[in-house]
Amino acid sequence: MGALHQGHLSLMEQSAKENDTSAISIFVNPLQFGPNEDLSKYPRQESEDLEMASSVGVQVAFCPSVEEMLGRNATSVTVTGVSDLFEGEKRPGHFTGVATIVAQLFGIVQPNVAYFGLKDLQQCAVIRQMVDDLCIPVGLKFCETVREPSGLAMSSRNKYFSAGEFERASNLNRVIVACANEIAKDFKNKKSALNRALNELSNLEFEVQYLELVNSLTMQPVTEQELGQILSQRLSQVGGTSNPYRIIVAAQFCGVRLIDNVSLPIQSQN
Amino acid sequence: MGALHQGHLSLMEQSAKENDTSAISIFVNPLQFGPNEDLSKYPRQESEDLEMASSVGVQVAFCPSVEEMLGRNATSVTVTGVSDLFEGEKRPGHFTGVATIVAQLFGIVQPNVAYFGLKDLQQCAVIRQMVDDLCIPVGLKFCETVREPSGLAMSSRNKYFSAGEFERASNLNRVIVACANEIAKDFKNKKSALNRALNELSNLEFEVQYLELVNSLTMQPVTEQELGQILSQRLSQVGGTSNPYRIIVAAQFCGVRLIDNVSLPIQSQN
Repeated sequence: MGALHQGHLSLMEQSAKENDTSAISIFVNPLQFGPNEDLSKYPRQESEDLEMASSVGVQVAFCPSVEEMLGRNATSVTVTGVSDLFEGEKRPGHFTGVATIVAQLFGIVQPNVAYFGLKDLQQCAVIRQMVDDLCIPVGLKFCETVREPSGLAMSSRNKYFSAGEFERASNLNRVIVACANEIAKDFKNKKSALNRALNELSNLEFEVQYLELVNSLTMQPVTEQELGQILSQRLSQVGGTSNPYRIIVAAQFCGVRLIDNVSLPIQSQN
Repeated sequence: MGALHQGHLSLMEQSAKENDTSAISIFVNPLQFGPNEDLSKYPRQESEDLEMASSVGVQVAFCPSVEEMLGRNATSVTVTGVSDLFEGEKRPGHFTGVATIVAQLFGIVQPNVAYFGLKDLQQCAVIRQMVDDLCIPVGLKFCETVREPSGLAMSSRNKYFSAGEFERASNLNRVIVACANEIAKDFKNKKSALNRALNELSNLEFEVQYLELVNSLTMQPVTEQELGQILSQRLSQVGGTSNPYRIIVAAQFCGVRLIDNVSLPIQSQN
């Protein structure tokens, strides 16, 4: 959606390193904004974006108009299951908007590989499910969130903050990292750790919409029993080679909606 | 969906003539059958089908299991507008089932060109719209219905008829051809011609579900006013190079559901 920051650029750098040609799309997709969301004020800075992308080795930019993408569009792609909770619950229609446009962009650009940032964890799960289900011939790479020195996840919406708010917004990441550490130490702490984090965020003026430990492949909450079973097995046998368990959070802070997620720091036993 | 007949074979012959490699899929798609439809008794004859396909130059057949196509499928593709009336109205969920599986087959097979029969006129419109909207990189060819000498459109479901029923079923085509001729002669006849056809089919023991003159690109009924405008213009300026106006019909006859459609025999004025 443009308004590029170091998070986007890290995806482009990785693509430039791994492929002969790298392309980006810049499209502020109306379908994925709800009626009370920030579509009209979403930051737009196309010429600056194009310069930044070019500087990290991107050769192609596709910047369609809304008319070009949605002019007579009557088709929608809906992914159930992974999209049911969290962002899907808070933002009705959001993931159908995302999936429809991403499918269309895949059809237009026909990339061999597409890169997405894990900051939008549930979006990654929705796109993975869609690509699997419709057998869309594209490889997917999901890349770790890039953060400010304070730990705040980079986001185009961080522009909305004053300098002071920007610093205080980093508490969101600090609290969920502590929460993840506490749960990883002893999974029996899960409920109390999540509650403590919720209270702390509330005291710090975050209006939390959800805070949960999830399996990022299914985007379902992990139960204590399930987690106990997981930790007692070799993690490498679960969910492929990497750890799929993450703490996810969404919160309003000073009028801006923030999301973040961090990995549960559990290690494979081999 | 297999149970191949000359209609299917004509599509394969055209593909074999126009391409180096031709592939078919055979998949009786549960998603496109309603709860009271004939999924369980739909004719299946895979080895016979494979021989027939091979005999007309098809090199590849993809015959997946239901588990393989739908095992953990959570994604659906919905096309609005062209799917709202007629089959879409009579068979809720049918076109979402068709679009989802066709999108998946396009992803798996990745054909340069795909061939569909115009007997399923609304299905052609749904697939055209989906391919346009999602920018799926496939060319589409829609081919005329192949008929029995009696005029009856070939269909896998014709197997359900006794010999006598099979002959009488051809009245469906005879009546809509006459209706199309009557309207083409003078578009002011539209309403009365459709009513006459409806009565005649009813007397011939067809339980008509719909009978309409439509624009096959939009699958919306054509009004008399619209038709008057069309006939007063050069047809070649309307809807591309070919005449999109067709009479469509669906009817139950002797326990079998039949659909058919014929072109309105109007000529370009140049």
